[in-house]
Amino acid sequence: MGMKNFKLIISYDGTNYHGWQVQDNALSIQGKIEESLLTVFNTPIRLRYSSRTDAGVHAYYQVASFKIETSMNEENLKLALNSMLPQDIAIVSVSIAPDEFDARRSVRKIYKYVIENTSTRSPFSFNRAWWLPYKLDFAVMFKASRFLIGTHDFKAFMSHGSDVKTTVRNIYDVNITVCTDNIIFIHINADGFLKQMVRNIVGTLVDVARGYIEPEKIKDILGSEDRRTAGVTAPACGLYLEQVFYE
Amino acid sequence: MGMKNFKLIISYDGTNYHGWQVQDNALSIQGKIEESLLTVFNTPIRLRYSSRTDAGVHAYYQVASFKIETSMNEENLKLALNSMLPQDIAIVSVSIAPDEFDARRSVRKIYKYVIENTSTRSPFSFNRAWWLPYKLDFAVMFKASRFLIGTHDFKAFMSHGSDVKTTVRNIYDVNITVCTDNIIFIHINADGFLKQMVRNIVGTLVDVARGYIEPEKIKDILGSEDRRTAGVTAPACGLYLEQVFYE
Repeated sequence: MGMKNFKLIISYDGTNYHGWQVQDNALSIQGKIEESLLTVFNTPIRLRYSSRTDAGVHAYYQVASFKIETSMNEENLKLALNSMLPQDIAIVSVSIAPDEFDARRSVRKIYKYVIENTSTRSPFSFNRAWWLPYKLDFAVMFKASRFLIGTHDFKAFMSHGSDVKTTVRNIYDVNITVCTDNIIFIHINADGFLKQMVRNIVGTLVDVARGYIEPEKIKDILGSEDRRTAGVTAPACGLYLEQVFYE
Repeated sequence: MGMKNFKLIISYDGTNYHGWQVQDNALSIQGKIEESLLTVFNTPIRLRYSSRTDAGVHAYYQVASFKIETSMNEENLKLALNSMLPQDIAIVSVSIAPDEFDARRSVRKIYKYVIENTSTRSPFSFNRAWWLPYKLDFAVMFKASRFLIGTHDFKAFMSHGSDVKTTVRNIYDVNITVCTDNIIFIHINADGFLKQMVRNIVGTLVDVARGYIEPEKIKDILGSEDRRTAGVTAPACGLYLEQVFYE
């Protein structure tokens, strides 16, 4: 037996859920996994986790952890959970972490945003990308994205209804990849993210790429600390939690 | 005005449909498009088409054609249809074909089959690939596939309930691509396909790759002209109509 600190890496299609976090009367990914853990261990378990993803947001790599006294090993727990979970949630790996590991204490995360910039919407990417049939200028989008890198107050890119001590975050990098089939990936690598920060940044970068906002204006938006100066909020369906790092 | 012979290239996710073909009391892709055409032209239109894909089968490139007296141009018809069709059906292109063009008279088609050979199912590929967590030997699968190429009687790979004049077909090529993320594409290029022929071939090739059938046995299966000698029918969700060629 002995106390084990289980670390789960979880991947999910968030389309059919009201987000990651457990809520009353709403389907959540955390809720589905905790239900399965209750069946496995016959005792209620509350997960600690790295990111509270919104309704419709996906993850390749969400991290959760919990402690329990059990003789069950990692491989059997993974098989048991995957056999119970629906097809749109998968436990990618289960490992036993050091006692002090806490999934909540990440030091860096990468989010990926997917844009489909084609004249005709692909029937395979609804709910999985933001379809934009307009002409987008990725050179100016790239130029604008440079102003986001570094330590800034990102209050202008935070949606209402969040209670945080500080709105200062450090963006290590913004990568914009334009694929040959006109699928665009925007990767944002930061020490932390405010409420809907990636979606507000992407919406603003798209407004720049459409010619509605000058790229240099990003500096003024950051300086304003006012959400109303930034662009639209990009839809949830294009957003993926891609990586989470710990010390 | 003048009579126009419209040629449509159509892409769809077949998950939510009872197949391509119009049926009473069942949702079909052809039915959805014909409904939209009725709205556009205010007269019932019956499509001619290249392939009657089964329930759950997808297409990147289905071809359909119809004739009508109209002043509407290709681009406006495409926009009108795409604005009415659901998110899982897209009109990729509309063109005006020569009078003698008939979508039914293709001379060659390519189907693609997608296998996900990973220990954990991806939450993004349910309904889009056949998930097989077993060890598969792609070298013997390739060896077996060589016996399929050429002109053969494919009766052993035809599912029951089809009424065709001849069960002889010519397979020009079978390509097996093993991607780094353990996604496998099997492309089959032939002058025509019998009922569920690709799914029966893929199921048999998987039985070979699992070690249940010797690769050389494919010759005997073809010779038997008996469906019971071949392997399982691969599920519809992994199958995509990828290309259709005309003279």
